Amino acid sequence: MKITGKSLGRHILAEMYNCNREILNDVEKIKEIMVKAAIEAGAEVVEVVFHKFSPYGVSGVVVISESHLAIHTWPEYGFAAADLFTCGDHVNPWKAFEYLNNYLQAEQFITFEAKRGILPIEAGNFTYKPEENKKEVKETVG
Amino acid sequence: MKITGKSLGRHILAEMYNCNREILNDVEKIKEIMVKAAIEAGAEVVEVVFHKFSPYGVSGVVVISESHLAIHTWPEYGFAAADLFTCGDHVNPWKAFEYLNNYLQAEQFITFEAKRGILPIEAGNFTYKPEENKKEVKETVG
Repeated sequence: MKITGKSLGRHILAEMYNCNREILNDVEKIKEIMVKAAIEAGAEVVEVVFHKFSPYGVSGVVVISESHLAIHTWPEYGFAAADLFTCGDHVNPWKAFEYLNNYLQAEQFITFEAKRGILPIEAGNFTYKPEENKKEVKETVG
Repeated sequence: MKITGKSLGRHILAEMYNCNREILNDVEKIKEIMVKAAIEAGAEVVEVVFHKFSPYGVSGVVVISESHLAIHTWPEYGFAAADLFTCGDHVNPWKAFEYLNNYLQAEQFITFEAKRGILPIEAGNFTYKPEENKKEVKETVG
């Protein structure tokens, strides 16, 4: 196996401290911001699921053609954890985070990036999806 | 800020190489395995969303009370990337991965674990959720 450093995708974990606590507890607002953040980054939104916990906290995931953008909020601590898994070249993850941060108003925004799916060169000069695979089937299991 | 090493949650990224390619492309099977893996780990399933791409690949997320369990598969490469974000003490993430791996039959299963939400001690002797917060409201934004 020749190590090429090439990967199928990038997974960025974001830690957001001292955010606007009111927004962190507003499921509709968080959903709207997350979907727009995904679009802003150039991703294609496939599915959206958000959940409000009582009395505090929101969890939600935007499934995109290029993987996912997830968030979990702790309004009681002013903290939110987001992660964006993206594949291919046309999504700019930093645009999503910039958009998200504009609305969550974090005092500290810390990220960690991991390469996902580092394949052996034997797999060929791989792309994250074969060309015909980019058009997704609208078949969803609820 | 005193560094305590305490965190709200753990986020484990799993790389699964040379899995069963047929299963990796079966959205119903992947959904079933993922939900059962979450339950096996002791998590409470809140929402489930899975998507089949054409001709290859499945993306899906199980939103749990304790955060999420996500997967993206590349049957064409025999590869799957999963991640489990879990909070609190009662979920055992390794049980979820063991269950998952039993069915995906990966030749190589590599994990990376990150602590999420390391809060300053000023936040007090925090728990991942206040007691009354463990009962979630069944309010979902679709």
